[in-house]
Amino acid sequence: MKLLKDRILAEGQALSDSVLKVDVFLNHQVDPDLMQAIGEDFCEHFKDHGITRVLTIESSGIAPAVYAAQALKVPMVILKKQTSKILNGQVFQTNITSFTKGTSYELTLSKDYINKDDKVLIIDDFLANGEAATGAARLVQMAGATVEGIGILIEKSFQNGRTRLEHAGYHVYSQARVSRLGEGIIEFIDDED
Amino acid sequence: MKLLKDRILAEGQALSDSVLKVDVFLNHQVDPDLMQAIGEDFCEHFKDHGITRVLTIESSGIAPAVYAAQALKVPMVILKKQTSKILNGQVFQTNITSFTKGTSYELTLSKDYINKDDKVLIIDDFLANGEAATGAARLVQMAGATVEGIGILIEKSFQNGRTRLEHAGYHVYSQARVSRLGEGIIEFIDDED
Repeated sequence: MKLLKDRILAEGQALSDSVLKVDVFLNHQVDPDLMQAIGEDFCEHFKDHGITRVLTIESSGIAPAVYAAQALKVPMVILKKQTSKILNGQVFQTNITSFTKGTSYELTLSKDYINKDDKVLIIDDFLANGEAATGAARLVQMAGATVEGIGILIEKSFQNGRTRLEHAGYHVYSQARVSRLGEGIIEFIDDED
Repeated sequence: MKLLKDRILAEGQALSDSVLKVDVFLNHQVDPDLMQAIGEDFCEHFKDHGITRVLTIESSGIAPAVYAAQALKVPMVILKKQTSKILNGQVFQTNITSFTKGTSYELTLSKDYINKDDKVLIIDDFLANGEAATGAARLVQMAGATVEGIGILIEKSFQNGRTRLEHAGYHVYSQARVSRLGEGIIEFIDDED
């Protein structure tokens, strides 16, 4: 997606060979019009997949996901990060370990907001090693529902997330695929736009 | 705001005399069209205040706040909940204690995304005792900027949040003011709509 890549080049900061900071329009300050364009781009890509629900992980995925859900005319569901297991049987939970941050949490989805007939689009801001997206997909499978696709804003293509998700059979669409990062260096995989 | 009150009556669950669960359209599953209507209602209310930035607290405030920011044609900034103090001098931080949840966190705002000329609209999903909104307002003041208003989706008017914020001089606009909760009971303050 050219619009997003242009913004990353103009305002993103490559802090190292693995860290890309986009706090200025996505992760801390958020540009609503860009989020809408991103949401509409996900809709365009997935509009023929019969999506019934958009799932995202709190909190940086929420803004782009809500516009994607709106464009697709379906509800969004926010997967919650809980520090502890909920044992009341009303939720699906799966453990996620963030290697980047060295933290661990229980990704949580209420049984009320998914059912076995759902065709789910999972949206997240970053794809690195695929831990969060894989966990979200596990929750969908626990519900007996179908993951129709995984939509990512920024993919770190030099990490193994995409390979891992595709190997598990998921359709992955990333709007910006970063092939290389370094101090002051941001390069993309040269794809269709 | 009639649309929101109607949804609360139709789909909200009063679990006790203080807990109102609106997971079905706001806190877990999110209705994008409702969020847009809510954002536009905040815009309508605050459009003559010269707002330059909308601030919200992760994560349930993000969806309504991004639509409010879009309608006001300004950026949204997400205040982050950190578990620990950041000591690099690049952020404003203030401690928030949630009496409801018995937890404490550092509400964090990068100095890059606020300046002293900003006229800020703070948006949050719930107002109970006003602890989170008061903390957000403290961050704005640390930056030397101005809190032009505080926009709340659901106010628990039987708690002291509004009094506390108004006493501190803030303009508070709540879309739904709940006067009484009980098992199966949801009542509103009878205001203009």
